[in-house]
Amino acid sequence: MRVHSGGVNYTASTALLTDKYELTMLQAALRDGTAHRRAAFEVFARRLPNERRYGVVAGTSRVLRAILDFRFSEEQLAGLDFLDQQTLDYLRNYRFSGSVDGYREGEIYFPYSPLLTVQGTFGECVLLETVILSIMNADSAIASAASRMVTAADGRPIIEMGSRRTHEYSAVTAARAAYVAGFSATSNLEAAHRYSIPASGTAAHAWTLAHINPDGTPNEEAAFRSQIESDGVGTTLLVDTYDITKGVETAIAVAGTSLGAVRIDSGDLGAVTRRVRKQLDDLGAHNTKIVVSSDLDEFTIAGLRGDPVDTYGVGTSLVTGSGAPTASMVYKLVEVDGHPVAKRSSSKQSMGSAKRAVRTHRSTGVALEEIVYPYGAQRPDIPEHLEVRELTVPLMRDGATVAGLPTLADARAHCAAVRGTLPWEGLALSRGEPAVPTRLVGFDSTR
Amino acid sequence: MRVHSGGVNYTASTALLTDKYELTMLQAALRDGTAHRRAAFEVFARRLPNERRYGVVAGTSRVLRAILDFRFSEEQLAGLDFLDQQTLDYLRNYRFSGSVDGYREGEIYFPYSPLLTVQGTFGECVLLETVILSIMNADSAIASAASRMVTAADGRPIIEMGSRRTHEYSAVTAARAAYVAGFSATSNLEAAHRYSIPASGTAAHAWTLAHINPDGTPNEEAAFRSQIESDGVGTTLLVDTYDITKGVETAIAVAGTSLGAVRIDSGDLGAVTRRVRKQLDDLGAHNTKIVVSSDLDEFTIAGLRGDPVDTYGVGTSLVTGSGAPTASMVYKLVEVDGHPVAKRSSSKQSMGSAKRAVRTHRSTGVALEEIVYPYGAQRPDIPEHLEVRELTVPLMRDGATVAGLPTLADARAHCAAVRGTLPWEGLALSRGEPAVPTRLVGFDSTR
Repeated sequence: MRVHSGGVNYTASTALLTDKYELTMLQAALRDGTAHRRAAFEVFARRLPNERRYGVVAGTSRVLRAILDFRFSEEQLAGLDFLDQQTLDYLRNYRFSGSVDGYREGEIYFPYSPLLTVQGTFGECVLLETVILSIMNADSAIASAASRMVTAADGRPIIEMGSRRTHEYSAVTAARAAYVAGFSATSNLEAAHRYSIPASGTAAHAWTLAHINPDGTPNEEAAFRSQIESDGVGTTLLVDTYDITKGVETAIAVAGTSLGAVRIDSGDLGAVTRRVRKQLDDLGAHNTKIVVSSDLDEFTIAGLRGDPVDTYGVGTSLVTGSGAPTASMVYKLVEVDGHPVAKRSSSKQSMGSAKRAVRTHRSTGVALEEIVYPYGAQRPDIPEHLEVRELTVPLMRDGATVAGLPTLADARAHCAAVRGTLPWEGLALSRGEPAVPTRLVGFDSTR
Repeated sequence: MRVHSGGVNYTASTALLTDKYELTMLQAALRDGTAHRRAAFEVFARRLPNERRYGVVAGTSRVLRAILDFRFSEEQLAGLDFLDQQTLDYLRNYRFSGSVDGYREGEIYFPYSPLLTVQGTFGECVLLETVILSIMNADSAIASAASRMVTAADGRPIIEMGSRRTHEYSAVTAARAAYVAGFSATSNLEAAHRYSIPASGTAAHAWTLAHINPDGTPNEEAAFRSQIESDGVGTTLLVDTYDITKGVETAIAVAGTSLGAVRIDSGDLGAVTRRVRKQLDDLGAHNTKIVVSSDLDEFTIAGLRGDPVDTYGVGTSLVTGSGAPTASMVYKLVEVDGHPVAKRSSSKQSMGSAKRAVRTHRSTGVALEEIVYPYGAQRPDIPEHLEVRELTVPLMRDGATVAGLPTLADARAHCAAVRGTLPWEGLALSRGEPAVPTRLVGFDSTR
């Protein structure tokens, strides 16, 4: 099975992106029959990253793809020399044949939201733990951070430019997760190709530095002139390599007042952008925009809300989840042969039973409560004046996707729509309680 | 070009793991001739993550591989519709033909250590920025965190088990970086196959939970019995699913006193391990080891130094760099046509000139000072009673590796050896000054 991905072709098997113990558990389970028991596993998070008010689900579509691609080649099997023949035969024929239900990609989530429920035999479900969690934890951490940056930017576009600060493939999916949450573009070419995200980029300090006179003295003007000849006056010139005021002056002298934008990547951005805006206006470049970068996060973005910033470029803080690089989601066995099961050792209790969830909204659209109840149970009564939205949707049945792979565009639109239903306090950047409370109904609380 | 990697085959082109602006800069540089200027770029970090005392270089071998694999296919070129024909032709024939010097993988580093120096034409060097930094920043962040865990563990083995908490491919290279820094094994199968790292793993709580009686009541004994039948008594039983004391009792009842180990994944690990050790000894299981996991980091590992822990399992904190998920390294143009160049805007000064470095050691072996000087200059005088070690070694010449790709075993051995030369205070976990001071010699301080 091969995946076309903007030029990077690879055999898409996800089978070895897996912890060894999934396979040794499978072996023991095949021997004692547990492998064939009906099981339900659930992906959820016990807490939101950094005590934030909400999280954003991302990675769902990639998870479904990874499940479809969870196949073992003969070459891979040959390396699994710690397994017996029965287990190797099982893996050779492995195709996930169960069901997956869960939250849509782009959905808002809270502690204990049942984000994915994977049902099938114990053997086929346990194998998927590692790769499902890797994807959900990485992508949701990024999307959850990105979403706060998007609301902090208050409608102004944000360009993702963090590729250089994270693993080379993590960079590609980070760009995707940021786009789910509302970023407008990425600097990463593979992400642009693989996911059709708009690509963006201008020039680095190296570009200006590379333009020196024969005696080694700087020639910023030559750098600007050359960039404009190549990219047109609509481009963005980086003006802070030497002296920002001089840089802006040179930029407009070279490009004229139709220059697309200037970028500032250092200094006290509030003070600098106000000064540069005035300078641009004084020069008649009223339509020349100001792009800022330089270690921005949601807090510094919000801090610039009153300043003349047109576009934000965000790198490190995006790809590192702004202090929470993982979403801490877990994949827990919650049901075996119809019986709820749960861990009971100190401080890590889980709640047995497969689950589904709805969210209630006031007639104004504002989210009121999330209600989680047993998967097979009837929905709890909800007052008639409230609107009810199903959070749990069918994603796979009998090992096949229910409606193909959810698209990135749908996830992005869904995120924007759902974020609009959060109570105002839910958009606060400060730490605090989840924006919407979760109520668990119909579970045996003594478990 | 194809890479064999434990079953996951992929066309190894790294060319699109790149920011768009590298290509638009190239285009402008081809038009104005800058592309053909001689240039030197340097990878360095202005600070150590979290004000730690030292960092560990990792990713060097992967960087060299990525440079060799930086080739554009026709399919990739077809997607680059924002470039002109001259640029596309340049990319079609692109092969890095320059040189790379730098620190060995596994080396200890400090702020401003010249970790990699890439020399060639401006055009061929500028293209490599993104992928070089992605790899160095990700791998060095992990290795730097891992190294502190290794010293905190004081000789006891640490198993890397963080795959589920990070991007599915980042997991693979995180296992590798941890191994460079001295971890003893990984749970990740792809890492085991691709890099020949020992794989390790036992069982999850799901394993125990899956063993219930027909009425739904737990049957921990059945889970333990089955695991031992499949894996032998040398296995590790996870004893904290229900009640730890009962779990240990059942484990020894089932396995006998030859049980390999018990794993504890929750609770106050100091108190619990002491209790469990006593219980095991009272049961005669003196050789049964205790493995602990549960959100360990370097501080909690150190905190357990006096407790009867035999092996640590570390997940989240390892793959997230224990609070510093990126090493914040940059790739800066430092020389053009033999002239030093440097940015001069506020707070982001760089120092021009390509560089090399040596480290001095007392006769006892303890590192004394790092000395950085211009690449082409003579080495500064160093007192005769000190030993001098070259930190800058040739890695590529004329686009080819100097001595093949450095091996993982060499990097791991080098890291262990070099860490042994740090002054004692350098191994402190607290924040502070770099363990070894860096002296810059022979640069024009006014630049």
